[in-house]
Amino acid sequence: MIVLGIDPGTATTGYGVVAYQAGREKLIEYGTITTPADMEMAHRLLLISQNLSKLIQVFKPDAVAIEQIFFHKNAKTVITVAQARGVAMLAAAREGIAIGEYTPLQIKQSVVGYGKADKKQVQIMVQKILTIPEIPRPDDAADALAVAICHIHSYRLRRTFKS
Amino acid sequence: MIVLGIDPGTATTGYGVVAYQAGREKLIEYGTITTPADMEMAHRLLLISQNLSKLIQVFKPDAVAIEQIFFHKNAKTVITVAQARGVAMLAAAREGIAIGEYTPLQIKQSVVGYGKADKKQVQIMVQKILTIPEIPRPDDAADALAVAICHIHSYRLRRTFKS
Repeated sequence: MIVLGIDPGTATTGYGVVAYQAGREKLIEYGTITTPADMEMAHRLLLISQNLSKLIQVFKPDAVAIEQIFFHKNAKTVITVAQARGVAMLAAAREGIAIGEYTPLQIKQSVVGYGKADKKQVQIMVQKILTIPEIPRPDDAADALAVAICHIHSYRLRRTFKS
Repeated sequence: MIVLGIDPGTATTGYGVVAYQAGREKLIEYGTITTPADMEMAHRLLLISQNLSKLIQVFKPDAVAIEQIFFHKNAKTVITVAQARGVAMLAAAREGIAIGEYTPLQIKQSVVGYGKADKKQVQIMVQKILTIPEIPRPDDAADALAVAICHIHSYRLRRTFKS
């Protein structure tokens, strides 16, 4: 199974591609899609959409994983993040790919085993789980990998309890 | 000039197509795109995207007009509205159509001539400007027509002061 995790944002959208093979998570790719601050909003969204579609075509993920956003946090950016998030969900839906949505609590619990883990703890666990030499940078890419891992854990759990 | 006004929302996206011909505004079409509440969010966004693309292909607007949204209002729905708004802007950008964004204040001032006008006053003026027998229903469609009219007024003003 291959999962594309997305951490949407207008300026920077993080992505992380994680495979679940032979009982373990394996890093395939991670990075960011960035758009210029002086570009019109609609064109920034178009750039994000085009790049996500390309990632989907290249890595052919079985699922897209994305964090749920809430009104109370990130007050200043919540609207632009939500706009980018809509575009990201659309990119998956257009390709007929299932989407897993997870709360920050679910992601922390799944990746660290502790719902109140801080950003650094999540990043260290992402590094350990994927057995990579360094913590993935920037934060947006690390967050995207975390939600992809969370989706894999959730999938494994669901499979375990189904069988 | 033909303008497609959009009032985005996950459950109901209003649209209004207004032409500016021979010095006056003319109603071409208005309506709503609705999506089932029990449908997955990504598929609701896909449905909105597909229907907006169809409208753009059918009416070939020169511009898309859309209301700016702000954090302080519509607290409960701001995230889902912003997600649908991102998808709407993307639909225009993908077709290379210019987008005009207007604040509620600008729309009211442009349509009614008074920035503190209420919803009813805006709707009555939309009806008068388009010389149609009834107030357009539902509110989402009337709002979409209002932002389309606002864009036409803004275009006329810009043209006047340029020449």
